[in-house]
Amino acid sequence: MSDVVVTLPDGSELDVERGSTVEDVAYEIGSGLGRDTVAGVVDGNLVDKAQPIRSDIELEIVTDQSEEYLDVLRHSAAHVFAQALTRLRPEAKLTIGPWTDEGFYYDIANVDLDESDLEAIEDEAESIIEADLAIERTEYSREEAFETYDDNPYKREILDTEVAGEDPVSFYEQGDFYDLCRGPHVDSTGEIGGFALLEISAAYWRGDEENETLTRVYGTAFESEGELDDYLERRAEAAERDHRKIGREMDLFSISETAGPGLPLYHPNGKRVLDSLSEYARSLNLDAGYEPVETPHLFRTELWKQSGHYDNYVDDMFLLDVDDEEYGLKPMNCPGHAMIFENQSWSYRDLPVRYFEDGTVYRKEQRGELSGLSRTWSFTIDDGHLFVRPDQIAAEIETIMETIFEVMEVVDLDAEIALATRPEKSVGSDELWDQAETQLRDVLDEGGYDYEVEEGDGAFYGPKIDFSFGDALGRVWDGPTVQLDFNMPERLDLQYTGEDNETHRPVMIHRALYGSYGRFFMVLIEHFNGNFPTWLAPEQVRILPVSDDNIEYAESVADELEGFRTSVETRSWTVGRKIRAGHDDRLPYMLIVGGTEEEAGTVSVRDREEREQDGVSVEDFRAHLEAERDEKRTTPDFLD
Amino acid sequence: MSDVVVTLPDGSELDVERGSTVEDVAYEIGSGLGRDTVAGVVDGNLVDKAQPIRSDIELEIVTDQSEEYLDVLRHSAAHVFAQALTRLRPEAKLTIGPWTDEGFYYDIANVDLDESDLEAIEDEAESIIEADLAIERTEYSREEAFETYDDNPYKREILDTEVAGEDPVSFYEQGDFYDLCRGPHVDSTGEIGGFALLEISAAYWRGDEENETLTRVYGTAFESEGELDDYLERRAEAAERDHRKIGREMDLFSISETAGPGLPLYHPNGKRVLDSLSEYARSLNLDAGYEPVETPHLFRTELWKQSGHYDNYVDDMFLLDVDDEEYGLKPMNCPGHAMIFENQSWSYRDLPVRYFEDGTVYRKEQRGELSGLSRTWSFTIDDGHLFVRPDQIAAEIETIMETIFEVMEVVDLDAEIALATRPEKSVGSDELWDQAETQLRDVLDEGGYDYEVEEGDGAFYGPKIDFSFGDALGRVWDGPTVQLDFNMPERLDLQYTGEDNETHRPVMIHRALYGSYGRFFMVLIEHFNGNFPTWLAPEQVRILPVSDDNIEYAESVADELEGFRTSVETRSWTVGRKIRAGHDDRLPYMLIVGGTEEEAGTVSVRDREEREQDGVSVEDFRAHLEAERDEKRTTPDFLD
Repeated sequence: MSDVVVTLPDGSELDVERGSTVEDVAYEIGSGLGRDTVAGVVDGNLVDKAQPIRSDIELEIVTDQSEEYLDVLRHSAAHVFAQALTRLRPEAKLTIGPWTDEGFYYDIANVDLDESDLEAIEDEAESIIEADLAIERTEYSREEAFETYDDNPYKREILDTEVAGEDPVSFYEQGDFYDLCRGPHVDSTGEIGGFALLEISAAYWRGDEENETLTRVYGTAFESEGELDDYLERRAEAAERDHRKIGREMDLFSISETAGPGLPLYHPNGKRVLDSLSEYARSLNLDAGYEPVETPHLFRTELWKQSGHYDNYVDDMFLLDVDDEEYGLKPMNCPGHAMIFENQSWSYRDLPVRYFEDGTVYRKEQRGELSGLSRTWSFTIDDGHLFVRPDQIAAEIETIMETIFEVMEVVDLDAEIALATRPEKSVGSDELWDQAETQLRDVLDEGGYDYEVEEGDGAFYGPKIDFSFGDALGRVWDGPTVQLDFNMPERLDLQYTGEDNETHRPVMIHRALYGSYGRFFMVLIEHFNGNFPTWLAPEQVRILPVSDDNIEYAESVADELEGFRTSVETRSWTVGRKIRAGHDDRLPYMLIVGGTEEEAGTVSVRDREEREQDGVSVEDFRAHLEAERDEKRTTPDFLD
Repeated sequence: MSDVVVTLPDGSELDVERGSTVEDVAYEIGSGLGRDTVAGVVDGNLVDKAQPIRSDIELEIVTDQSEEYLDVLRHSAAHVFAQALTRLRPEAKLTIGPWTDEGFYYDIANVDLDESDLEAIEDEAESIIEADLAIERTEYSREEAFETYDDNPYKREILDTEVAGEDPVSFYEQGDFYDLCRGPHVDSTGEIGGFALLEISAAYWRGDEENETLTRVYGTAFESEGELDDYLERRAEAAERDHRKIGREMDLFSISETAGPGLPLYHPNGKRVLDSLSEYARSLNLDAGYEPVETPHLFRTELWKQSGHYDNYVDDMFLLDVDDEEYGLKPMNCPGHAMIFENQSWSYRDLPVRYFEDGTVYRKEQRGELSGLSRTWSFTIDDGHLFVRPDQIAAEIETIMETIFEVMEVVDLDAEIALATRPEKSVGSDELWDQAETQLRDVLDEGGYDYEVEEGDGAFYGPKIDFSFGDALGRVWDGPTVQLDFNMPERLDLQYTGEDNETHRPVMIHRALYGSYGRFFMVLIEHFNGNFPTWLAPEQVRILPVSDDNIEYAESVADELEGFRTSVETRSWTVGRKIRAGHDDRLPYMLIVGGTEEEAGTVSVRDREEREQDGVSVEDFRAHLEAERDEKRTTPDFLD
């Protein structure tokens, strides 16, 4: 047998006999590594350690110290779940059960399960783990395999498709359980330190809506009980903070099947937060010399053909026919802004021209992918477009970077940035790309920004800076993008007259501070757990009269707080109940006013952290509230 | 021959012989009236004085003192035009030539005309008027008529349709001219005191786009030259103020064929005005206890079917198919607001609930009817919807009335109102209608409002108050409507729990302060002739450095005016040219700063009326400007 070349992660090469397994190679490197081998990563794919090597490959050996070990462990956990399930529900027909970033799932047919069944299955799985059954790879002939799955059309279909032509085929066995599977798996069920089933949902066979509905059970597994507990705690915290849940509790928004999926309706409480965000962006934009514009939501698709979006975006566009012409809802605001720019003739002295608009765009996501405010059909972007001379890129980018970082600081999110540079296929001259990339790098370097460079990851029409932000739970979300664009000015024939009296193309910069208001709102809801800073809170102060006798005084206090979002609690409840309701509504402040306060002309201030102070003058409180709002402080700090 | 009964305007009845003409009746009333008779109005229709009366009718005799006399005169003027045209262009084929509110038009085939041809035709018409030709009714047999129009298929078509079966048919002749025509006409061309041709446009035969294109010539006529001059002056003034013209001059907005007709793009200058209007409405709304909401532009049409709009509005809706379901762009905001209301359970103590939204709606007007910002496909309404108990109608209507009148006063428009009451077909109980109408009348009466009552003109779902406003040129525009609605709460099953613990239906009130922002903007542009009050002006103050040496000082002045929409004129022009440009841009104020001002730390203030004052301190000017803006004064009054 001839040799094949195996390249290891450190770049070293190893000649091994063709047909050697991953485990063989590991033993060749060292017997310790051989013993520890769990699986291999061959040319980027996680495979069983028994996988024979038949050509030159790149190989990484996976041990229980590797990052990939968790994937293998979770793959085995999926089998443990399947074993436990089929013990309890022998009628269940297994289909597929892969690992995921968060654990694993298994899709099952012919079984009727709900959340209440999970505990029993989990108990059974625990006993399988405790029994520490060896997990062993074995091979069946195709004929045996088909016989085995006599009553399981899904596995037979897999045999006919993914495994077509293979004979024998690979199975994994543990105790009384076996499953058609390519692996890899850990050596025994006992390696699973923590195991939990999480939830049940519906899924389609092969993910196709036309096929049968299956039951999908999600679970997860870790090496240790402690890691599982940490994960479950974070998960519970995230669920507690789910923006759909808080959205209902605080009456922020709703999405209705009657109105249409993916088309959120913002209720007064939600709209107040959005309005505060919008006002903030507006003041930042006006300060930075942006000018407001307004464009419609409906356009002839002719414009999108001219701009070049049609080719790439048509599948995501809501299209309609008007008088035998094709129109579409705008999936982005840029061509509309470019049209306004185009309306006028510009001199080099007029640039940069900067437009902004809270522009609502429509993108037709798959219905199955719609989720709360995170993925919607309609969303509003705090959209800005700049038309600049090539030599003005640096100065504009600098301001934009500073502004975005200011916003991130105000809302207490950690910003991370990446610079994406020229890809292989691109438009625009070398000179323009070099000039632009140099300016972007200079701005980032001179500004002392920490950033990653994603070489070749820019759009074909220009380099960009991608923002992401980390929230209070350590999750990272995609943020806005600052995108240079050499293409649209060309396609829409945008011009200015240079100092040389010649016609030149401006560079377009696309930028947003928040990106989608809806998505940013979602991040903020979950990040703050609904406990919005005072400047954002839908209701900033509620005045609680101790008894109905104090309502009039409470209303006079509310009058003194004019300009703030306040209310007077007039329901005939006990003060205790009023306070609990105020905390439930996540109010920054409550002002409790009884006979004592009324006599003294003061209020008793209670904040979100349940701190209280009596005998506060309304003027003092108001002065503090103004400062807190205007400085956009993150937490109510009157009682600090 | 038997008699018929003729009822005269004063209610008196006259028995006349069947077959008597209008003129006969006039003579029967009195020989003076007989002599003065020009035409008659029979059952509301203007007819020739030779018209025989064959049944009981209502009749009004038209003399040169009647309102209708001008229509008759203009009808004759259309004939004079046609006579003049066919003298100069014998190839022209006449089609129809009616009078209108503003004059007349005549549609002609087989002729190539442009504006430059109008003068010669007008001259020819003048000579016809001077010749004072008698205009005489005559009758041709059908056969003669057809022969006459041997080469005119349009007139032959009219003979076959409108005049089908009549023999003989009515013609009018004056000198060498004759025209198939029912009349009425004045006695001679000399009665036309003032005659003018106004413009040429294209028209379709029978108004149908499928038919041939004709040339339409618009003209007008008056009894006297003086009245014509007044009219032409008003018309020129209106043309001067045309919002499309001023829109271009001030760079306020554009409508582009590429983007789509009827879909305006608001440029920075226009958007600044809209934003100022929106902020004003917002502050009024918040003060009146309205809460902000936001709803999408796209909805499943299912919602419009539930709300009942689908049946009436479907032809005006932009519809599209999404995943085999019908969706539509919203033609109105109310059902979205009702859905938000419906999301929660309400007690009688929570009402009124008031929502507002700057909501952009889409209505598919015929392309030919689109016109500037006056008729568009997309427009934004400062929309408000209230959900009230029946007993709360009066208080809410009172506030709304006061607010709308406040707005009208601020923008210097005369408001007129009409109350439209229950029509024959209607929904809602007698009790509810009576209660509602009584409250509306009480509010109007007690508020001392001048109003007309349009009995039976309410919508089937509730009574309403219609606003119209008169502008600086004396024109009257439709304004917002305050509409009670008993139907939508029923259809969308809106509820609240009453004091009696039973379920009740709220009444919905639809209201806007401006109506469509675009249309209101149009009215304001024309009303103010682009000379917006300072609080609305796109650019409020421009600082003009006398020379480039003063630019720095000019910029420091601009800094002191932070918060206002200012700019510094940095072009290297003479001060004179800078001032002219500032007046062209309709600026409320210019501040001229040269060496003297720089040394003294002052400015020279120049206002829109070209008044100037030297040596003004910037603080004084700023203080005034703040007051002027915050009080929303109509004209710049620093130099009053």
